[in-house]
Amino acid sequence: MRLVHPKKQLGKKIVVIVGAGFAGLNAAKALSVYPELHIVLIDQRNHHLFQPLLYQVATAGLNPADIAVPIRSQFSGIDNVEVKLEKIARIDLETQDVQRDNVNEKLPYDYLILACGARDNYFSHPEWAAVAPGLKSLEQATEIRRRILVAFEEAENEFNIEKQMALLTFVVVGGGPTGVELAGAIADISKTVLIRDFRRINPGQAKVILIEASPRVLASFSERVSVKAREDLTQLGVDVRTHSRVEEIDANGVVINKERIAAKNVFWAAGVQAAQLECAQNMAREKGGRIKVLKDLSVPGFKNAFVIGDMAAVEWEEGKFVPGLAPAAIQQGIHIADVIKADYQNKPRPEFKYLDKGAMATIGKHKAVLEVKKFWMSGYLAWLAWLFIHVFYLVGFKNRVAVVAYWAWSYLFSKRGARLITGTESHRRST
Amino acid sequence: MRLVHPKKQLGKKIVVIVGAGFAGLNAAKALSVYPELHIVLIDQRNHHLFQPLLYQVATAGLNPADIAVPIRSQFSGIDNVEVKLEKIARIDLETQDVQRDNVNEKLPYDYLILACGARDNYFSHPEWAAVAPGLKSLEQATEIRRRILVAFEEAENEFNIEKQMALLTFVVVGGGPTGVELAGAIADISKTVLIRDFRRINPGQAKVILIEASPRVLASFSERVSVKAREDLTQLGVDVRTHSRVEEIDANGVVINKERIAAKNVFWAAGVQAAQLECAQNMAREKGGRIKVLKDLSVPGFKNAFVIGDMAAVEWEEGKFVPGLAPAAIQQGIHIADVIKADYQNKPRPEFKYLDKGAMATIGKHKAVLEVKKFWMSGYLAWLAWLFIHVFYLVGFKNRVAVVAYWAWSYLFSKRGARLITGTESHRRST
Repeated sequence: MRLVHPKKQLGKKIVVIVGAGFAGLNAAKALSVYPELHIVLIDQRNHHLFQPLLYQVATAGLNPADIAVPIRSQFSGIDNVEVKLEKIARIDLETQDVQRDNVNEKLPYDYLILACGARDNYFSHPEWAAVAPGLKSLEQATEIRRRILVAFEEAENEFNIEKQMALLTFVVVGGGPTGVELAGAIADISKTVLIRDFRRINPGQAKVILIEASPRVLASFSERVSVKAREDLTQLGVDVRTHSRVEEIDANGVVINKERIAAKNVFWAAGVQAAQLECAQNMAREKGGRIKVLKDLSVPGFKNAFVIGDMAAVEWEEGKFVPGLAPAAIQQGIHIADVIKADYQNKPRPEFKYLDKGAMATIGKHKAVLEVKKFWMSGYLAWLAWLFIHVFYLVGFKNRVAVVAYWAWSYLFSKRGARLITGTESHRRST
Repeated sequence: MRLVHPKKQLGKKIVVIVGAGFAGLNAAKALSVYPELHIVLIDQRNHHLFQPLLYQVATAGLNPADIAVPIRSQFSGIDNVEVKLEKIARIDLETQDVQRDNVNEKLPYDYLILACGARDNYFSHPEWAAVAPGLKSLEQATEIRRRILVAFEEAENEFNIEKQMALLTFVVVGGGPTGVELAGAIADISKTVLIRDFRRINPGQAKVILIEASPRVLASFSERVSVKAREDLTQLGVDVRTHSRVEEIDANGVVINKERIAAKNVFWAAGVQAAQLECAQNMAREKGGRIKVLKDLSVPGFKNAFVIGDMAAVEWEEGKFVPGLAPAAIQQGIHIADVIKADYQNKPRPEFKYLDKGAMATIGKHKAVLEVKKFWMSGYLAWLAWLFIHVFYLVGFKNRVAVVAYWAWSYLFSKRGARLITGTESHRRST
């Protein structure tokens, strides 16, 4: 059944946005100022997630609720935005409607914005997902937290030295910002927070190995930043192995460059791919499955369908695409409002111009690297800048206050507040 | 293999404590001042939980980490306390040793303290556990939170009025403090926090039904307190049904006094029973499976084995037992240290004397009832007293600050900070 939206009957244009990440959420906010539009924002989660801080949840520095806000709460009292917790079953660009799981009616749209983000890319090894979780959702972050904390507990109870060492070996696959931040935080937590809590093991002797296939970590930054990041990681005790490709992962370890490393904890940060949608099968794709869009961010051939955020391949400079970063997603979300406004005014659509705000990554607790165009910075000052920017961007009043409070506390007392082992899985894995 | 603890070889007495709730944790702390003792504190969780505030996690007011601390962190730098994340397989009171899951060696003890707490009691209906979760662990609390939030989301998408009403009907079984607090908090959240966030439903029209088999709610309090609590609940919109016994629970509702009520959300607060341990099978049991102990809290026939906390039936006054409350558990934990000290000094063991600190329950956001012996109080002042006492007792520096911050925020802005739907289960239940 094809439903006519009641707001459509009132003469409003229906904008359907799929995904409430940085791109989708900001598109909805920017569009909500036009009363002639009715926006339906659909997500399969009830919360918007501040993904850049997920690694802090994974390493017990922040609570899940500190980096997530209910999507609904962002649109309290904004009447022309309707939030729906639903999954998309199919989208038809020709007939212009959206079909949702468990909902009979098709939802027709005047404009469609796809902003479904990205997910882990295990390349040709989907079976690695179970042994080496990635870091894209709150569930994955609490699962990684559980695995890290349980590993120390089990090591404390283990009498066999080899098994004990495997429990205390943490392998992070992928030397991009996520991998660098995760590896640094694990090294940090084992050397500072946990150090006094065990009787038989010394958590400081945990081995953290960061594996990167390319010649350097943080390959998207300039080479000098990579060199500095590697130095800082090494100083933290992280064993950085570049030129190293993972050939095998199982419950007992990894094989890199034909060498077997016994490790009970392997985490995946080696790559992402754009979310898959059935409707998008015929669209042209770039590296990582991203959908190629035109300068106005619309899908070639479908003027009223847009793809934005990590799901889109937007050309930036010759042969270069806009990176999958939060500021890029936010800018694209806001740009859509200008495009739709231009349509109304019968003006030509503006082209999307990416404003490069640079990129940053923390390394352990009080260090970071930061690069904006030709300018770069490292060390404590870069960390302060990182802290300031992340706190500033955190959505919603509550998050800012809580995050600052936790950080201040953690900074002063070198503790981790959220060291909880929870979950339905048994705390004990088979060995 | 029977292991001789290395500390035993150093001439220390080994005290094994099973369970790190209020009773076990306080026993370990009180005993740790005696250097001649080596304490092994075993728990199947890594965290000590402030159970009286679990209902706040279930209703999105607090984060899991706000009411839990890693057990280990409580004994940082206290060398004669060893914390173990392990499950108990068997305890032999005759040979005086403890066998753990997945550990070959038996751990012999000089003193044993059982403090395993209580769990939900579904009486002769264990199958109700899946449809009507209780509120004893963090996992249960986040599951209840998930169910409450998902119910509103699904109601928003539901066009069938009857199904919509079933989604918005919340049944709490059991009118003790937990049931009263949970029912009040659900009524409160639907009328204040969620009220502006939906477009099609009015969360304020959610029905909350509190079912109690006995003639009054809060039956452990005096009758005047029960009357006041019922008034306050009714004013909040809670439909209080006393003299009502649940005859059936399934995924679509409950049957009470032969009447079927369609409800997609049923929560269980109708009773607890002492934790079961194989070793305890021959011990004399009281109501709720609690193990009868002597005046010094030892098990009859086993002078060096103690049972404390919710697991113990400790006689208080003629025919009356010490209630299953946090202050009672704390007092019992501390008492054990005095008993063991008396053994050392060849003095007679002191008898446990329960100091009644009264009981309290919150009703909605700014009301509570409180009763200490002949004295009772209700309303806003009682709520302030409840707030002060709970914050004061919260274990660990972090928790106090974070909890106060959250409460202040929630109080000022009438928001709930932790409205996250997470979990491995699909967000959508079959209807």
